[in-house]
Amino acid sequence: MAPGVTTDASARPQPSRNATAEKLLDAVSDLMIERNSTDVSLSDLAQRSGVNAALVKYHYGNKEGLLLALLARDAEVQVSHLEYLLQQPISPTEKLKLHIAGIINAYYRFPYMNRLLHLLLHDSTEKAAQSVSHFFVKPLLDFQRRLLDEGVAAGEFKPVDPVFFYTHLIGACDHLFHGRHAMSRAAGVGEVTDEVRRQYIDHMIDALLGGMLQPERRRAAARN
Amino acid sequence: MAPGVTTDASARPQPSRNATAEKLLDAVSDLMIERNSTDVSLSDLAQRSGVNAALVKYHYGNKEGLLLALLARDAEVQVSHLEYLLQQPISPTEKLKLHIAGIINAYYRFPYMNRLLHLLLHDSTEKAAQSVSHFFVKPLLDFQRRLLDEGVAAGEFKPVDPVFFYTHLIGACDHLFHGRHAMSRAAGVGEVTDEVRRQYIDHMIDALLGGMLQPERRRAAARN
Repeated sequence: MAPGVTTDASARPQPSRNATAEKLLDAVSDLMIERNSTDVSLSDLAQRSGVNAALVKYHYGNKEGLLLALLARDAEVQVSHLEYLLQQPISPTEKLKLHIAGIINAYYRFPYMNRLLHLLLHDSTEKAAQSVSHFFVKPLLDFQRRLLDEGVAAGEFKPVDPVFFYTHLIGACDHLFHGRHAMSRAAGVGEVTDEVRRQYIDHMIDALLGGMLQPERRRAAARN
Repeated sequence: MAPGVTTDASARPQPSRNATAEKLLDAVSDLMIERNSTDVSLSDLAQRSGVNAALVKYHYGNKEGLLLALLARDAEVQVSHLEYLLQQPISPTEKLKLHIAGIINAYYRFPYMNRLLHLLLHDSTEKAAQSVSHFFVKPLLDFQRRLLDEGVAAGEFKPVDPVFFYTHLIGACDHLFHGRHAMSRAAGVGEVTDEVRRQYIDHMIDALLGGMLQPERRRAAARN
């Protein structure tokens, strides 16, 4: 069993406290950002980090184990941000706006995070997918459930199904990154630049909070 | 060059008019629905259809060519629905509601369509991805652009960026199917049943059209 990875799907994976293990995670993160790709081999990593390939295997077993440990480390940071956000003395509406921006910004800053999620949830072992569901999907869903409850209790949000809300918001944010290449080919739209990131945050906040109907139409629709 | 596949990415792929080629598409579609998987080999297909394996290769070249021809055939049907919808004598708001239901219903009826889109756009050759972008993504984006223009002209919709609108709506609908398994593991939610399909259509229509803020909050937010 590699130290950085847990077998108990119900437990949060323990971050590796070992300095070499941490160094390897930093090196693979740097390599994936530099190459703008998750295509990094264990031998690339050994060369970059100066850590013996045997030690890479000792700490993480195989590439899946390494990627899982990296995503678990990054997810832990993101989940701590969610907890912090929930405790702020601001309205649920303001928290939701910051949450939408937070998801898009995290994907923008760490493009590999989005790709690792797709890779580990859909194209890896069932064990890896289960682990990602538990350290990433579940805490995010739990956070949103609490935020929605808070917003409804404050009279700010309409009641919505939290699983549908999650599906809608995460799907929409994910698609800016995951679907962009297909759209570039079809519509000649460019890469996700800093400007696009900012504009999509505004779009999602406006669309999710206010809807796209003009106010008089919205009142008419509500009467039907 | 296999008859069912076009090399010119700007042209709509020609549906194969050959009876054997059509029969093969029906057979692979049936097999994927039965197995609830896109994992169908050319020899499975030959066996099921009673068509000689050499003819499968003759018509579609390889598995990618076959899957591409199937998706192109199904996309053509969907795109013709979009054109029909746009010509109906109903309001842009009603068209948008039917469009949202149409996307979710198409994915529900043909689960393999969603999987083929992911497979051919992200895990196949650049040529396949380019072809899918042109026969699927582009017509859908063009339709939405026209519908949005119509809705703004009629005073029903707020002006929104069509590429962002596409990203938001398609991402959210796709995630009900593509992200469901990860959510099942994390939240114990079940499969996408007919009931879930119906409820998510209602959720997306309400959320996209009306937003999630309570009306008095929405007016307050608009004043800021």
